[in-house]
Amino acid sequence: MSGGVEWALHCCVVLTAAPAPVPAARLAELHDVSASYLAKQLQSLSRAGLVHSVQGHAGGYALTRRPQDITVLDVVVAVDGVQPAFVCTEIRQRGPLATPAEACTAPCAISRAMAAADEAWRAALRGVTIADLARGVTGDYGPSAFDGIRAWLASA
Amino acid sequence: MSGGVEWALHCCVVLTAAPAPVPAARLAELHDVSASYLAKQLQSLSRAGLVHSVQGHAGGYALTRRPQDITVLDVVVAVDGVQPAFVCTEIRQRGPLATPAEACTAPCAISRAMAAADEAWRAALRGVTIADLARGVTGDYGPSAFDGIRAWLASA
Repeated sequence: MSGGVEWALHCCVVLTAAPAPVPAARLAELHDVSASYLAKQLQSLSRAGLVHSVQGHAGGYALTRRPQDITVLDVVVAVDGVQPAFVCTEIRQRGPLATPAEACTAPCAISRAMAAADEAWRAALRGVTIADLARGVTGDYGPSAFDGIRAWLASA
Repeated sequence: MSGGVEWALHCCVVLTAAPAPVPAARLAELHDVSASYLAKQLQSLSRAGLVHSVQGHAGGYALTRRPQDITVLDVVVAVDGVQPAFVCTEIRQRGPLATPAEACTAPCAISRAMAAADEAWRAALRGVTIADLARGVTGDYGPSAFDGIRAWLASA
């Protein structure tokens, strides 16, 4: 998994607390990361329809839907795509005892086991929303955890 | 995940059907892959205690325990190590509102969600054994699916 996923998730959680759209440069400053790098992640989120860019003087990025309607899997797929961890190369079709291609219409037992594990991983990430993550932050640091971020964003 | 995992799993399934130890070169020939590449995967399995090498004229590799006692996760970890898909870089400790390191003794909400998904993936792979995979092969290709492999191994 790329490091971009971690930045993108942190940005989404921050946006749940923002009363107005937040410029990409401001999100980069808050996270102490290069603006061009973070812009790339935000563009991935935007292409996936998770955030949208508001133009103009008070412009910036905002979530397109409620944080409880954006899952962690949505963000992972937006940034990293849908490529599974295991890629079957059809080893059964190789060598002196190769299974004929026409007999290989369904995935083999190894490929099925790997696909099931991949789906378990995806299901776990689908079961956690950005709202859950934001609740986790206030659970860890207290109900005023986002007040500092809101004040800092307003101070621009 | 490295491609070596796929080769290693195929080798383990073949070894469940082998009446005697199988030389690495023979496993490579069966799978139509370079012997030196496959030797590397077999050495990983050996270091993890999943296979052992029998020396001598009738030597080769054999499973060290019953196929129902070797999980797919055992093989994945033997070949690829235990590095999780997501690596937390403690973004919360960066920037103008950084959380002090001493307040970061437990993983953050994002890291916890990722770790839970990783554990779901591992649990799925832990729930499938090499015996299950071999049963999958006979389920797909009939009860005599391994007869050809046994005959080919005996023909060396």
